Amino acid sequence: MSGANGGLGANALARLAILCGAGAFPLEVASEARRVGREPFLIGVVGATDTAIEAYPHVWVRMGEVGKLFAALKAQAIAELVIIGAMTRPEFADLRLDWGAVKRAAGIAQAFRRGDNGLLAGIAAIIEREGVRVVGAHEVAPRLLAPVGKIGGRAPSTEDESDIAFAGGLLGALSTFDAGQGVIVASGRVVAIEAAEGTDAMVARAAEMRASGRLRFAGPAGVLVKAPKQGQDLRLDMPAIGPKTIEGAIKAQLRGVAIAAGRVLMLERELCAREADAAGLFVSGFAYPGLPG
Amino acid sequence: MSGANGGLGANALARLAILCGAGAFPLEVASEARRVGREPFLIGVVGATDTAIEAYPHVWVRMGEVGKLFAALKAQAIAELVIIGAMTRPEFADLRLDWGAVKRAAGIAQAFRRGDNGLLAGIAAIIEREGVRVVGAHEVAPRLLAPVGKIGGRAPSTEDESDIAFAGGLLGALSTFDAGQGVIVASGRVVAIEAAEGTDAMVARAAEMRASGRLRFAGPAGVLVKAPKQGQDLRLDMPAIGPKTIEGAIKAQLRGVAIAAGRVLMLERELCAREADAAGLFVSGFAYPGLPG
Repeated sequence: MSGANGGLGANALARLAILCGAGAFPLEVASEARRVGREPFLIGVVGATDTAIEAYPHVWVRMGEVGKLFAALKAQAIAELVIIGAMTRPEFADLRLDWGAVKRAAGIAQAFRRGDNGLLAGIAAIIEREGVRVVGAHEVAPRLLAPVGKIGGRAPSTEDESDIAFAGGLLGALSTFDAGQGVIVASGRVVAIEAAEGTDAMVARAAEMRASGRLRFAGPAGVLVKAPKQGQDLRLDMPAIGPKTIEGAIKAQLRGVAIAAGRVLMLERELCAREADAAGLFVSGFAYPGLPG
Repeated sequence: MSGANGGLGANALARLAILCGAGAFPLEVASEARRVGREPFLIGVVGATDTAIEAYPHVWVRMGEVGKLFAALKAQAIAELVIIGAMTRPEFADLRLDWGAVKRAAGIAQAFRRGDNGLLAGIAAIIEREGVRVVGAHEVAPRLLAPVGKIGGRAPSTEDESDIAFAGGLLGALSTFDAGQGVIVASGRVVAIEAAEGTDAMVARAAEMRASGRLRFAGPAGVLVKAPKQGQDLRLDMPAIGPKTIEGAIKAQLRGVAIAAGRVLMLERELCAREADAAGLFVSGFAYPGLPG
């Protein structure tokens, strides 16, 4: 917030860049930014980012090419940066450090000694020291945030609501440990907890447990609940769901998907709702304790 | 504890039965009981228990054949029962209820409405109402318990100790939710958390994440930490590790395995130690907060 251009705030004139991880999300944020008149400059990570970003003004960098990244931000007069999309945490030793990285090596190495939240916060701090404000995708594209209440045609049952509340408590307890953005709870039983594998892999695990008979339920059972870690900087690595999540939930024969309203991004909302409705699942936003505002 | 034969306590004359889940553990407990002069009567669950139990006096029952189970316990004049080995939680609807079960249906249905701990506690209560004391495998076979300190030739490093303490805190937080007997932590990062999939599947997941590049470490990384849920009735579903756990930890390129001393059972300890030593892993018991005594 203390960058040289911080005073510009989120006004439409601040030049916006998007540091794009894997998946379709960066493109949806870019499209939404363009829609509101903020033509974005996209930064792709070689080997991770979808090459479709080339439809926008862009530059490609390798992990660790910090100098190249900052040179591009400077050349484009970027004032605000969004970091969005799936990123695999690299090992420090695997980074292609350029001279710009070496100059900032102490800060980078320090960031790498922390958990995932700590790593991202460290990276954001390094970026802000260069005078570029790091903002959340939801600030640039608030239409992508989950609302409170049902998103598709179905609403959670009373028992589902109870599972959602239980799961919210569990996620809150986990967040102290910089872990857990997702959990699956079925009638008060904890079926799966997400750690480094990510939400899609956790949901696939629930499907496997049903297929193998390790989990035995008659009919749909379980709710996937997603929320950010408490104290997590929502500008960075905000939790997100999309059609892939809904498809996974259908395969796992879940009853529905509940996400923390205002704190989880939804990719392709209409498609998600349509797929969930067709399969009889609910998708809804819930008020998560600690929700700012 | 209040059963008609409760007054016999754990003396050598109390006739012992073992209700055997899947895996080799029930046989090791039976062997240890026999070694200390308590010839056990084994109860196998059709489709789950190893047929090798037939080397002992035994009976086979199906899930839900509660009447048959109690008739056998009575005919054998059983005073104490150990429940041990992996059990897949059945659905109430899948039980083969016999008349003895129907008579106790209210209690059984009530037990099924609870989490895994609750289910086992409910089952134990039903058994104790018949005058059979439910005891822990560790009471019958204390030699199977993990000690404090290293079990193989290697000891955890200072950083490993820090990961073990962190993991212990995480497991303690999870236990409020009747979840989590295992977790993998690597240099302060939570790699995987166990829920319904079980420890072996969680460890296999860590191996997959390394193979796929989702987890990137140079060399061995991470500690598997196991402890019972706090408040868990240690007579029931006590956590356990064995050679399969060590083999999984080796495949996942972990640094070691740490288990709550006095509260986790070790199957084939010498083999575990030998395998771990050969692969350069540590196996050790740690003092877990709340350890009784």
